[in-house]
Parts: sequence; structure tokens; C-alpha cells
Amino acid sequence: MKYRYAVVGYGFIGRRHVATLKSIDNVDCVAVCDTNPQRLEEVREIYPEIEIYRTIDQLLEESDINGVIISANNNQHKELVIKSARAGMDIICEKPAAMSVAEFDEMMEAVDQAGVTLTVHQQRRFDKDFQTIKKCYEDRSLGDVYTIKSSLYGYNGNMHDWHVYKSEGGGMLYDWGVHLIDQILYMMDSPLKAVFADIRNVINKEVDDYFNILLRFENGVTAEIELGTYYLSDQKDWFERHWYMGGNTGSMYANKFDPEGKIVRTTKLLENVNEDQDKSAKSYGPTRSFGVPEPGLIVTEDIPKVETEHIEFFENYFATLAGKAELLVKPQEVRKVLEVMEACWKSAETFSSVAFEPSMEVKV
Amino acid sequence: MKYRYAVVGYGFIGRRHVATLKSIDNVDCVAVCDTNPQRLEEVREIYPEIEIYRTIDQLLEESDINGVIISANNNQHKELVIKSARAGMDIICEKPAAMSVAEFDEMMEAVDQAGVTLTVHQQRRFDKDFQTIKKCYEDRSLGDVYTIKSSLYGYNGNMHDWHVYKSEGGGMLYDWGVHLIDQILYMMDSPLKAVFADIRNVINKEVDDYFNILLRFENGVTAEIELGTYYLSDQKDWFERHWYMGGNTGSMYANKFDPEGKIVRTTKLLENVNEDQDKSAKSYGPTRSFGVPEPGLIVTEDIPKVETEHIEFFENYFATLAGKAELLVKPQEVRKVLEVMEACWKSAETFSSVAFEPSMEVKV
Repeated sequence: MKYRYAVVGYGFIGRRHVATLKSIDNVDCVAVCDTNPQRLEEVREIYPEIEIYRTIDQLLEESDINGVIISANNNQHKELVIKSARAGMDIICEKPAAMSVAEFDEMMEAVDQAGVTLTVHQQRRFDKDFQTIKKCYEDRSLGDVYTIKSSLYGYNGNMHDWHVYKSEGGGMLYDWGVHLIDQILYMMDSPLKAVFADIRNVINKEVDDYFNILLRFENGVTAEIELGTYYLSDQKDWFERHWYMGGNTGSMYANKFDPEGKIVRTTKLLENVNEDQDKSAKSYGPTRSFGVPEPGLIVTEDIPKVETEHIEFFENYFATLAGKAELLVKPQEVRKVLEVMEACWKSAETFSSVAFEPSMEVKV
Repeated sequence: MKYRYAVVGYGFIGRRHVATLKSIDNVDCVAVCDTNPQRLEEVREIYPEIEIYRTIDQLLEESDINGVIISANNNQHKELVIKSARAGMDIICEKPAAMSVAEFDEMMEAVDQAGVTLTVHQQRRFDKDFQTIKKCYEDRSLGDVYTIKSSLYGYNGNMHDWHVYKSEGGGMLYDWGVHLIDQILYMMDSPLKAVFADIRNVINKEVDDYFNILLRFENGVTAEIELGTYYLSDQKDWFERHWYMGGNTGSMYANKFDPEGKIVRTTKLLENVNEDQDKSAKSYGPTRSFGVPEPGLIVTEDIPKVETEHIEFFENYFATLAGKAELLVKPQEVRKVLEVMEACWKSAETFSSVAFEPSMEVKV
């Protein structure tokens, strides 16, 4: 069987979805739907074999498809998913799945009633940098991890298309936060206990362009997720992805999406102070506790090389439809990310942390 | 008049206090008190003119002094300050002033009853790196500041002397946290609203050797204070002091205690997306919102050069005694720092933020 899919919303990511569907065996992109006639004209020129539709209703009524990829503006996901589910479509929805947990619950009600499959395009679970960090975490390469920092910096608040408009679901927490939070939750093997977040409109009028989120987990990990679109430096490689992970037997850093970094250890751990230390202050640099390490103390290892590609998201999805795999991005995980995002907004507004109780872990 | 001072506690910092007192006009160090006979022997050899005492009681009874500098272990500050105050001494106490707010209140009761002056050795208000940040903040060099990061990283959990023992007031929040928090509170012109903190014993058994503290202020500044004694990297300059400050007209960074850094701006702020942006994805690097800036977009300025030295702490103190200055480090400020530290411990234990109400701003 060849899966016949339509792409609903032919913007930046919709264009990519068409190309992706066309690249996978047993799958085809047979239709595109967009409200913008210019974009449909572009489809007709590049892919004359693809049907084009101006409305989701027309698409669902007239086209012979098995499923849809929803890649319209965030505020349109709910309506498009519900209509698609009721038409019996299996669905891949762009991230964030919904503008709120309440919206997502409405969507899932329609999905469950229709008995269709819904997943969300959290393809950054297959980012190389993330998979590298995840591997080191799972292998306990750094012992007991206490801190994970995931950050991304930009240079002039650059945001595109409808992402600058609040009513359409703009802002960086929706756009990137959803990926960065999803990565951490996907990796963690422990309940989330609390969220503390700072969210700002630094140079954008309507929407957030900076956030710093602390997620505290029961197992002792605190993950810090920071994104700044107007967070400047003249230092090389600043304007890219950064990770830092610290454990009790070492640390690691990884920069760039195709990560460059090291696992770093010391040749000896300080076990305790000895009597002689009392007067040895001069050897410790500018202060006694900190300063440049002695030569040979710091040793490094290469970070592992993890082979991973975004296409694996789609491979998993279609293997799931064929009964040959378990769905990678599960609706209950999607819901949890939305819960965390709502907790972030609440925390930022109230200047207080938001608790996650164990009961919240088993919802859906 | 020449101020005759004694130094109580001749450890690392006590040694420095003797030298400092000897370097200031109108001040002399006439006595040293320590429970360790070896250390007193060292005093006798280096400074034969200085009286030596084994107990604070003997010092206060026998020596003709105007004041004391208390530089014993943290757990001894309370008793030593109270005894000194009752003997009519003006007092400089090492940081942290006390192990708790309750202890400090007891100390201040004795100080106030005796009508003596107490200050605390928060000399890092005169650190060059901090003063540089403070100047840029006060000059509004970056517009409206939203984030300030103050961090310090070490290499093998190196902690000295009694600082590894909990009972003596060890741990890095007491040792360094008190400075890093004091700097931020001293600089801020707005009430503190909430504290969220993560505090760990990463490789030390008894005491904390890592902390990450978020302080949210009413004016929109979030200050993040991070210290890691086992927070490794092989990158140059990692093992030193770091600052980052972000505002809506630029950012700045400063590394090292004698700071090296830049104020960084963009030649144009993104005002909003334009229609053409829809298809221009390829110019934005690895993702549309982030990526390397175009040549010429990032411009830098030198950070200001601020001349400042720790000796100014003592100059202010003795000028205050002479009625020629206002005390720099005020007891109510010292108390506030201790309140914040207690909030940090509570936050770390409870996985929740601790609120600061306006009423707490006017205590003491």
C-alpha cells in the first residue's frame, strides 16, 4: 500500500513536508491545501501532479487521501485537526500542536472518537546535538547529572512570517520552546517537580523573543533552557546551539547543531582538604577556590558520534501506521509539553514557580 | 587619632587583614587573637610589635584597642561579635556575617545596645568586573536590562580549610554566594520579588559546591548567579569570572576579575517581518530564526574602565568612624543577603520559588 497524504499549509515547513513525503518509499504527497493562491500556483509549477485545494473542507471531500500533515499557523491547528480526524484522516500536526492544553484536549477528543492516529512534528528529537547529549545522559558518561543547559542565541530578534503576531500563535516559546522542552522531557527518566520561567518581549511588541526556563526533576537534574533572539556577543560560534551537562564524574559541552564538543574530566577529584592547604593560597590563582587548573589536571574525551536524521521521524510514523513500530511522539507527551509551556507563562507572570505533582505525570 | 584594631582569627583572610590595617594611615593592627598557637608564633615572627592572644576574652580585657576585625570560622562570628560589641568595640566582621538571619538579629541586638558600628567585609563591591557591570547598568548603556548573569567556575571542587565542614559554616553559598548575591542586591534599584535556587553537593560530602540562583526583581531584571566548583571545560578562560548582561539596545559580556569584554549592538534592530521574508529562508543559516549574522551587523564598544580596589572598603569604614562618610555595607543590607541565602536553601529543598514581599524590603 502507498500512503496518500496531503499537506495543509504551504509555508516554509509545508514546502519541506511535500519534499519529504515525496522522498519516502510507499508514501506520496498527492495534494496541497493553502488559502494563498500564489502558493498554490507555486505548487502547480513545481509539482504538476499534485492536486491543489483552497480549503480543508474541499480537500477532505474531494481528494482520495489517507492522511494529512497540518502545517498552517498555530492558531489554525485545532480546527484543521478536528476536521481531518472527523474525515478519518491519520494526522501529523506541526508543533506546537495547539495554543493550549484545553485546545489539545478538544483535538484529542475528536481524534480518539475517530480512531485515527495523531502525532506532532517534534522532529528535533533527531537533532544530532540532542541525541549526543541524550546518549551521554543514558550511558551515565558523567555519573550523576545535576545540570543540563540547552541554549540558542540569535542576533537581532529575527523572527519570520506570522511568528511575530500573538493572535496567530507567534512567539519563541511556541516556535522553539516547544522543541527545547520536548527534548528535555523526552530524555528525562524522572517526574518533573517544578518549573520556573522568565519570558520576555525584549524587542518584539506582541510576542516573546527571550525565555529562560528551569525544569527541576525528582532525580536531581535541573535543566535550564534559554533562548535569546537578541542576545548578542561578538564571540565566534555564539549564534548557534549550545549544550552543557554537568555530573559528578565530569562535564560535557557541545556546540552547533552538528555538535562540536568534549567530555571533560579531572585526573583527580579533590577528596578533601589536607592540613597543608592552610597556607598554600598562592597556588590557586586569583582566588583560592577558583583559578586556572594545574597543567595535566584537565583531560578530555571526544563526544560520541550519533548518526541521526530528521527523516527518522517520518519513518517511525509510517512504520507505526503499518503496525511495525511504536509511535515516537505520543499524544500524552505532546500534552505534557503544552502543560509545561502553560506553567512557564504562569511562572513568568506570577514571579513564582509552578509545581508539578505526581498525578500530572499519568494524565491522558 | 590612630585607630587601634585587633584581628580575631589569623587564617587566610586574617593574615590579609593584618597587612591591610598596617597599610592604612591613622590605623594600626596592635593585636591578633587565634586559638592556634602555631599561627600566633607566625605573628610573633613577622610582627614582633603585635600583641598575641589565645582567647577573645583575654584580648578584650587586656588590650587597648578601638575595634576588631572578626575573621574566624563562620560558626564563631556570633559569639565573637557579641562579646566584642559588649566590650564597646567597633566591628568589621567577615562574610557571611552569621549562619542565619536569627543569629544576625541576635548580633545586631548586642551591637545596637552597645552603640557600636558593625559592618561586614563585602569588599567585592569593589571588584573591577562588578563595578564595570554596575556602571553599565547605571548608565543604561544597554537600555532596559532584562538579564544579568554572574558566574564563576572551578575545576576540581577545590575548597579549603574548614570550608568543607558543615558545622563550621562551610559550603560555597556561604563562602562565595554571599558576595555574588550582595553584588546584585547592591546594584539593583528595585524590590526583589522571588528567588528560585538549585544548590548541590556535587563532589563534597557535607557542603554545597554548586549553586544556581535566579533573583527576579520588580523592575524586570532577572539575575542569575551560578557557581560551580566542579564545572569543567577545556576552553580557555572558563575557570574565571564571567558576566553577561542583556538589554533591549544591546548586550555586554565581561570575563575575568580584571574584566575583558565588549558591549555589543546591532547596526539595525529588526522592526518587523516584511512580506519578502516568506521565502528567504536560505539566508538565515541552520535555522531561519538563528544563525550567523551578516557581516557588519554586529558592532562592539569597549567596556568602560573602572578604577577600583578592595582597600576602598576599609577607607570607607574608617572614614565612617571619623564621621566623614556613610557606611558602605549597612547592617540592613547584610541582613537582606542572609534572608536571600535562607530563601535559596528553602527553594532548593522544596523545589519551589520563595516570594519576597514588599514588607521585607523595609525590615531593620
